[in-house]
Amino acid sequence: MRREQKVSAAVVKRLPKYYRYLNMIASKGIIRVSSQELSNITGLTASQIRQDLNHFGGFGQQGYGYNVEELSGEIEKIIGINKNYNAIVIGIGNIGQAITQYSGFKDSSFKIIGLFDKAPKMVGKKVAGVEIRKADTLEDFLKKNDVNIAILAVPSKEAQDICDILVENNVKGIWNFAPVDLKLPDDVILENVHLDESLYTLTFYMNNPKDYPGVK
Amino acid sequence: MRREQKVSAAVVKRLPKYYRYLNMIASKGIIRVSSQELSNITGLTASQIRQDLNHFGGFGQQGYGYNVEELSGEIEKIIGINKNYNAIVIGIGNIGQAITQYSGFKDSSFKIIGLFDKAPKMVGKKVAGVEIRKADTLEDFLKKNDVNIAILAVPSKEAQDICDILVENNVKGIWNFAPVDLKLPDDVILENVHLDESLYTLTFYMNNPKDYPGVK
Repeated sequence: MRREQKVSAAVVKRLPKYYRYLNMIASKGIIRVSSQELSNITGLTASQIRQDLNHFGGFGQQGYGYNVEELSGEIEKIIGINKNYNAIVIGIGNIGQAITQYSGFKDSSFKIIGLFDKAPKMVGKKVAGVEIRKADTLEDFLKKNDVNIAILAVPSKEAQDICDILVENNVKGIWNFAPVDLKLPDDVILENVHLDESLYTLTFYMNNPKDYPGVK
Repeated sequence: MRREQKVSAAVVKRLPKYYRYLNMIASKGIIRVSSQELSNITGLTASQIRQDLNHFGGFGQQGYGYNVEELSGEIEKIIGINKNYNAIVIGIGNIGQAITQYSGFKDSSFKIIGLFDKAPKMVGKKVAGVEIRKADTLEDFLKKNDVNIAILAVPSKEAQDICDILVENNVKGIWNFAPVDLKLPDDVILENVHLDESLYTLTFYMNNPKDYPGVK
């Protein structure tokens, strides 16, 4: 389906939430669901939900609601997790190890095909069954393998140089855990998980509860 | 300083970024900085930066700019990291262990005073020098200790029950890593790190690059 308008970042952030709730509903054997029922579960309004989903096509039927499995499948396609992604993790410290073993990757869409660290004592060890390679073999690995997503869990000061290598070697998605703002060309998608910003947001609101917008 | 208006979530999210850049500048021995120089480094406009900081008082001086150390100290107070927080981590799996060892906690503002897990094989082990306790001793621990922040890294289905115990025992800040939307009273601040939503946002934009708003 061709869309004329850009989908807003707010809508994009709600899609994984719909997907999560639909899977939860499906696991209970429920076959169809109305936007009102989805509203009760998600806390979003029914009209918001209908509007969000209408961006991608009319999946529901008046008086019937949504077929849970069908809608879940459609959202899978929209999010792009009906496809397969080869991923690598760079920086196998605590965060890098946790992400490598992240349960979300047990989903068949993602395959971790390489781990990289510059510490000699880490090289050769395995995490989640994947061997850690020397950081300086990254470029060679990228030339020989089709890597779609690179996960960055290196110290801030190393992150940009590594990104430059990733970009040169055609990696199009970067999931960045380093507390740094990376500079990338427009056709490389960057998604940051900035733990410092998240923690400081928590302390800010604890100290300024009147500014707290409530749970989103 | 009393503020009349709520500070928007967008401003709150930029404060940790300012703090990060100011620390970076300070570490280079730079004493003062103009909003224009901050703009060059952060990629935000100078007027945006001035406007953001004006929410909390006028820190800069016309023609002088900001004193780096002073402004960093002011933002520290605004974010609330001039104070001390006792934190506990519940669920000491891969993510829980990584968070316990998270470098952000080396900051003297945060002290991890308790770790909890329900797996018998984990109990008694230490992470970052803190012993893991039995999950069912949590309530007793909360009654005997002043816990400000609870970090949740448990499976989704256990998260709400644990939250209820935290709320009953006066914990006012929850940093949640479980992929679930928690229900909390208004005076408890919740900050989520939803890795699934972040990863799916990445794949969405990789598949819909025209919707990508660029790096924020």
